[in-house]
Amino acid sequence: MNLFSGKVLKVNLSTREITIDRPEPSFYRRHWAGATQGFYYMLNEMEPGVDPLGPDNMLCISPGISGIPASGFCRVSIQAKSPLTGGACDTLAGGFFGPELRMAGWDGIIVSGRADRPTYLWVSDDKVELRDADHLWGKDVGDAEATIREELEEPRARVLIIGPAGENLVRYACVVNERKHVNGRGGPGAVMGSKNLKAVVVRGTGDIPLADRETIRELAQYFVKNSKTNPDNAIHQVYGTAGYVNGSNEAGLLPVNNFRTRYLEGVDETISGEVMLETIGQKHKACWACANRCKSVVSIDEPYKVDPQYGGPEYESIGALGSNCGILDLAAICKANELCNRYTMDTISTGMTISWAMECFERGLITLEDTGGIDLSFGNAAAMVQMVDDIAHRRGFGDLLAEGCARAAATIGKGSEAFAVHVKGQEFPMHDPRGKGMLAISFATSDLGADHTRMEHDSDFDAAAPPSFRENAQPLAIVDVMETSVLDVKKVAVHAQLAPLYAGCDSLGICVFVFAPVRTFKLAQVVQLLSAATGWEVSLAEIWNLGQRRDAMARVFNARQGITSKDDTLPPRMFEPIGPGPNEGKVVDRDNFEKMKHLYYEMRNWDKETGVPGYAKLYELDLGWLAEQEEGMKQRATA
Amino acid sequence: MNLFSGKVLKVNLSTREITIDRPEPSFYRRHWAGATQGFYYMLNEMEPGVDPLGPDNMLCISPGISGIPASGFCRVSIQAKSPLTGGACDTLAGGFFGPELRMAGWDGIIVSGRADRPTYLWVSDDKVELRDADHLWGKDVGDAEATIREELEEPRARVLIIGPAGENLVRYACVVNERKHVNGRGGPGAVMGSKNLKAVVVRGTGDIPLADRETIRELAQYFVKNSKTNPDNAIHQVYGTAGYVNGSNEAGLLPVNNFRTRYLEGVDETISGEVMLETIGQKHKACWACANRCKSVVSIDEPYKVDPQYGGPEYESIGALGSNCGILDLAAICKANELCNRYTMDTISTGMTISWAMECFERGLITLEDTGGIDLSFGNAAAMVQMVDDIAHRRGFGDLLAEGCARAAATIGKGSEAFAVHVKGQEFPMHDPRGKGMLAISFATSDLGADHTRMEHDSDFDAAAPPSFRENAQPLAIVDVMETSVLDVKKVAVHAQLAPLYAGCDSLGICVFVFAPVRTFKLAQVVQLLSAATGWEVSLAEIWNLGQRRDAMARVFNARQGITSKDDTLPPRMFEPIGPGPNEGKVVDRDNFEKMKHLYYEMRNWDKETGVPGYAKLYELDLGWLAEQEEGMKQRATA
Repeated sequence: MNLFSGKVLKVNLSTREITIDRPEPSFYRRHWAGATQGFYYMLNEMEPGVDPLGPDNMLCISPGISGIPASGFCRVSIQAKSPLTGGACDTLAGGFFGPELRMAGWDGIIVSGRADRPTYLWVSDDKVELRDADHLWGKDVGDAEATIREELEEPRARVLIIGPAGENLVRYACVVNERKHVNGRGGPGAVMGSKNLKAVVVRGTGDIPLADRETIRELAQYFVKNSKTNPDNAIHQVYGTAGYVNGSNEAGLLPVNNFRTRYLEGVDETISGEVMLETIGQKHKACWACANRCKSVVSIDEPYKVDPQYGGPEYESIGALGSNCGILDLAAICKANELCNRYTMDTISTGMTISWAMECFERGLITLEDTGGIDLSFGNAAAMVQMVDDIAHRRGFGDLLAEGCARAAATIGKGSEAFAVHVKGQEFPMHDPRGKGMLAISFATSDLGADHTRMEHDSDFDAAAPPSFRENAQPLAIVDVMETSVLDVKKVAVHAQLAPLYAGCDSLGICVFVFAPVRTFKLAQVVQLLSAATGWEVSLAEIWNLGQRRDAMARVFNARQGITSKDDTLPPRMFEPIGPGPNEGKVVDRDNFEKMKHLYYEMRNWDKETGVPGYAKLYELDLGWLAEQEEGMKQRATA
Repeated sequence: MNLFSGKVLKVNLSTREITIDRPEPSFYRRHWAGATQGFYYMLNEMEPGVDPLGPDNMLCISPGISGIPASGFCRVSIQAKSPLTGGACDTLAGGFFGPELRMAGWDGIIVSGRADRPTYLWVSDDKVELRDADHLWGKDVGDAEATIREELEEPRARVLIIGPAGENLVRYACVVNERKHVNGRGGPGAVMGSKNLKAVVVRGTGDIPLADRETIRELAQYFVKNSKTNPDNAIHQVYGTAGYVNGSNEAGLLPVNNFRTRYLEGVDETISGEVMLETIGQKHKACWACANRCKSVVSIDEPYKVDPQYGGPEYESIGALGSNCGILDLAAICKANELCNRYTMDTISTGMTISWAMECFERGLITLEDTGGIDLSFGNAAAMVQMVDDIAHRRGFGDLLAEGCARAAATIGKGSEAFAVHVKGQEFPMHDPRGKGMLAISFATSDLGADHTRMEHDSDFDAAAPPSFRENAQPLAIVDVMETSVLDVKKVAVHAQLAPLYAGCDSLGICVFVFAPVRTFKLAQVVQLLSAATGWEVSLAEIWNLGQRRDAMARVFNARQGITSKDDTLPPRMFEPIGPGPNEGKVVDRDNFEKMKHLYYEMRNWDKETGVPGYAKLYELDLGWLAEQEEGMKQRATA
């Protein structure tokens, strides 16, 4: 009785070959499922240098540990080579697809090749079929999903799908399930699009084997109780992540006008989570088996019609499509958010690319002629919504912005690279290393580029928070959380300890709102859940090691694509002082950043110079096969 | 309600000053007690280069986590600068002293300075007194202990004490409690002797604060049941560690004639644990609150009178004083063992120094003239017993052997260094890297010199053993346990994972027979016990980190004494093939060993060349204060 089925589905779209891979039992204890599973296949079966939008890229889908009937164990992860960064893509979504895939009896789906025409994959328990998707191509998420369910006569099928943005190879196209659950970052939707893969559809009717259902039931009940009484969690249940907008602005940490300032007058009265709930909010939705119900839902008729099925905007989306474009128009933000989900585009990269274009426009680097008459001034909500639509369809100026801000800046030139706010080609999420010192390291060294899932919140460093995340790992020196902008060796040490734990939980696919920062479950309880599901004696050390393994695999994958320390950088804007607001004048010190970056490599036991884990470290992480691959590669390279 | 009292007793014997140190609560979460506590004081208060037998050495005594009423939580640890290695001394003993110290309300005793005359320390709960020991000086352990209890009118006082060997500064003098529980290695008895400190006597009548007694009771009961039914544990309960003698010989792994061969005909009929039990064995004794009862007791009248109160010989003692001296005389071994405990000398170093002398004698490098007429031929049991007595009293040739084999060889010269089997000046325990490949790394890189407490048994690598120690930490590649002599990168990786766990449990003071290799408790249960005792949410990751911290502190301490990679060596004998027997011809490959040693440094994230943890690693381990000390030292050194 073990969570895993022992079966990984392999689909080659070029040859239409469908095979079953049956990893050794020992594979699961080492890699579990999720990111370390996907990276395993990518590192073993993908040559360095392949075109992310070519047939040799792989799309790895895994339910991780989803299917444990408790809050937060519902996610699906996707790994691929990112069309945005050229390195690892690793992205999670909530919803219902993950557990469904597990109920269908699969630990993962590895897609390779390229279909010669639009296709979708239909997995009904152990029946697997490639089906024609000509009639779905061009359709948005909702229409296509409905058509699929109808034609399969499976109203309960779960659909992982792309809309026009994915089909049109928007480099930051996302993948959506149930219209509002999003594998958002790194462009997995473009990978699906490039493979002519419209959707992966799953129906599972089997039981998920679980070693100890009673313990799981008890812990799940604990969560239900604690999620209601835990004061830190209230914000999620009442407002969703949108509840962070106002506090972030008040603290001078909300991005405004392409990261030039961090405070915008009027946010509290226009685009805050509180305003959203009071004016357009509907009852929240939840993911599979989750008591948290953090997904806000909005409904608007005028001036934009916003379909509630696509959900309401998260903190990240309000920041990216709103304040960071100087926009305080909640309806426009909700519409843009709906379009992003409908067409499958990452809201963060979309908003950030538009805000970059707005700054170009303000500086006169692009004109109305370039934009086809669209006035891309900061604060122009209608222009923003129009641009979202244009990007998804690669229409007019949208075609350039569909490449992301880094590539667009390289095309435009004229110094516009200086305010393209990205790492490794991926746009910043709505957090700022100038105001949260630790992020300088976590964003710069993230294997995914700047990413809100590759960071800890400075609030996690609060020694006072009981039970402390940190205490679970090791008791660390008290870090001064009042001075969040500080980046010093103590903070780097905390990050070096926490990052593998986050990476481990992420790799397994546990929702961040369960294990951190709110900690509705204590980590010890997460460990108990994993033990109860698998029958293994799991420990926190094992999760920590798994996270280290995930990170090592990602960094080696990136290194094979030529991505190393030179790419662990911050954009120039981070070395410019923040404009007016509570954090005015704060800036990242370049020398200190470089010093801390290399100290961080050392702490992680990656190569001090390149930031890539070496032969010994890989072996220590039980990645001997990878160490030998690398050794062989070096020998070939030097021969 | 927490295990720790928050009080550390500091005694300066030179000034007779007695003070109480009250570490911050955060200190305990980071350092707990035990080795990381002792090393903390040594690193902060001892200058590099002090004479181990001078007043500036420190003697750090700690109960660790002793006092949790469950099997295996009874030990007392001692740290000091070792008179044998010049580096860290860190040694554990079972018995009753540790819990008594905790019941007296102390987390540790830090002794510095040198008394101007024989003295003992009397701790009766919070009453602390330095008392005259003139009348005890020269007395053996049993007599002195009895006298102390009588004069204090405290028959239940626990006495940590030295005999004549400690007083006479035998470099490998041990410290004994209850006549048979021994802080054996590294010469802590000589440090006590050099301080004119005959004994530390404790009586504690307080309660030990424990957060959750009920959980502790349940786990303790589990142990009682499991210790009886666990087949791997039977050998300890029936024979004690002496039960390993025969199997070790049969496998060709028992040291014979100063490590020249590993098999001795007749062991099974003369000095095995089975023979010992059947012929001279008495009922086993147990340590405080322990259900394991692994301490064998023997009683002999002829030809040697052996007092049962000093216990029977362990595996290590039978090997060192027996087979490795070519001796198959069980009575002589038991007598020598009794004398070692009575006079307080480490049986391993004693036997190994004598076996070295026997090889010198055989080769004619020393003669009857040198030995004062004692025929030091291999196999001469009476000579061995005589020599034990002579060493303890530094009588005749014993005076030279009291220095340990490395110093004695340096004095004798004539090539005798080539067969002095030690690392860093400390003699080998009864295990051989030629037959157990991993030991080449664990012995060579041990911060204590060759030491049986700084190794894992290759049997721990057995992937088949459920529940696997390894699985608790991380699932590691299957290591071929049949080929135990192999030393390859896979095995080094296993060691790099296991060593910090062992070091963490050791540093806390948990008996090795509880957590490994028999695993009567699962590690998850050890974690539960620690949580229940302290009220903290302890995790295995925390123990792992604690072990890393202990090792880092020890290596930095050693580096300050000039002990670095150049001292992480093996003696020449390891590069000579094993003589006749099942492992005949096996040898350590020098190039492979050197390569694996540096890979091991890398895996531990110590400096690749020197093997010393650097600034970043120390910070990562929450040893920022030590990192800054080291940085300051380097700056001073280069200024």
